[in-house]
Amino acid sequence: MDVITLERKVLVKNDEIAAENRRLFGEKKLLVVNLLSSPGAGKTSLLERTLEYCQNKVKIGIIVGDVQTDNDAKRIDKYNAPVVQIITSGSCHLDSKMVQSAMAKLNLNELDILVIENVGNLVCPTNFDLGEQYRVVVLSTAEGTDKPMKYPAMFHRANCVIINKIDLLPFTNFSVEEAQSAVQSLNSNAVILKTSCRTGEGIETWCKWLLSKTAKTSATS
Amino acid sequence: MDVITLERKVLVKNDEIAAENRRLFGEKKLLVVNLLSSPGAGKTSLLERTLEYCQNKVKIGIIVGDVQTDNDAKRIDKYNAPVVQIITSGSCHLDSKMVQSAMAKLNLNELDILVIENVGNLVCPTNFDLGEQYRVVVLSTAEGTDKPMKYPAMFHRANCVIINKIDLLPFTNFSVEEAQSAVQSLNSNAVILKTSCRTGEGIETWCKWLLSKTAKTSATS
Repeated sequence: MDVITLERKVLVKNDEIAAENRRLFGEKKLLVVNLLSSPGAGKTSLLERTLEYCQNKVKIGIIVGDVQTDNDAKRIDKYNAPVVQIITSGSCHLDSKMVQSAMAKLNLNELDILVIENVGNLVCPTNFDLGEQYRVVVLSTAEGTDKPMKYPAMFHRANCVIINKIDLLPFTNFSVEEAQSAVQSLNSNAVILKTSCRTGEGIETWCKWLLSKTAKTSATS
Repeated sequence: MDVITLERKVLVKNDEIAAENRRLFGEKKLLVVNLLSSPGAGKTSLLERTLEYCQNKVKIGIIVGDVQTDNDAKRIDKYNAPVVQIITSGSCHLDSKMVQSAMAKLNLNELDILVIENVGNLVCPTNFDLGEQYRVVVLSTAEGTDKPMKYPAMFHRANCVIINKIDLLPFTNFSVEEAQSAVQSLNSNAVILKTSCRTGEGIETWCKWLLSKTAKTSATS
């Protein structure tokens, strides 16, 4: 059996479990987001700001994936949100089975939103469906304008792209316009937002986008 | 055959070709560096500054790995250095066979240094020996102090860690001291340098480190 055949088998199995996860999330009327980025683009900071903004509005649970350490879970734990840390011990992405195991440690009935913070990696998580409804990709201004075109598959499949660390714009050569048009050329359906977790700019717009996708909001609007 | 057995076979084959590459590099008295980082930490900018500084001192060839686009090769091409672009078309790392094929397009006899710029990824390239003598890992201050502990294997195997974008230090919560002690706790042999490709700070020290490793310098010193 060659590598490609084996990879295909791994992905088929992953898709089967992802479909089971998605069915369960649907039954629970749970909004599930797969949060992706390079290492250090600001996924955890974005989660912290999101938990602050949403604390009296909806109940958010978090699954955090990291190659090593439970630093991110500890950071999130301060916000009294239910959080499960997956340590992948070397694996470069989360898969649907890891998420299925982590889900079992959460009371899904009490949640409105589940955010799955993936391993920091712009390549490998792309092909692994976790059962989410939305993929949100965070791109930091410090990473450079060229990243969407260099990692196209990641941006091609995103429902929402967040350009984060816009407070660093004056100190980098990042062009928001060029990044936006690169994302649009790959994926004309992606919503593009801008945030700074340091200054709080754009956090309300992002949280409103997220809240608008919940079953609660959909039912009342 | 399960995934782990297959992965082991892939790595054994990779190591065999890496050993062939290393033998050839030794014969040619060529210094070979595997340059690694997250997407957007500044590998290509560092190469640009390095080519500027070293232009009348040594002859540097470059192999550039990217998932998509030949942007990086185009940037480097301006410096009149021999450059070969590898587009991995989805693969998350370079392997020794890709490097072997790319090497065939360079005249190794006329080079003193070959820098292999890997795919932007802090996980997957770790296990793939390319035949290099030195691994240099670039960490950007915008990525956060916690990255060495979150991606320990990458830093554990580094010969040199470059903390880049130090011009952004006043605008981030990055701690150089904490990052240094994290790297040292993982790998007490790693040389730790600080650079800014924007201001040029630290570039001379880095280039002198690099030049000190060449056969030319070793022979005369």
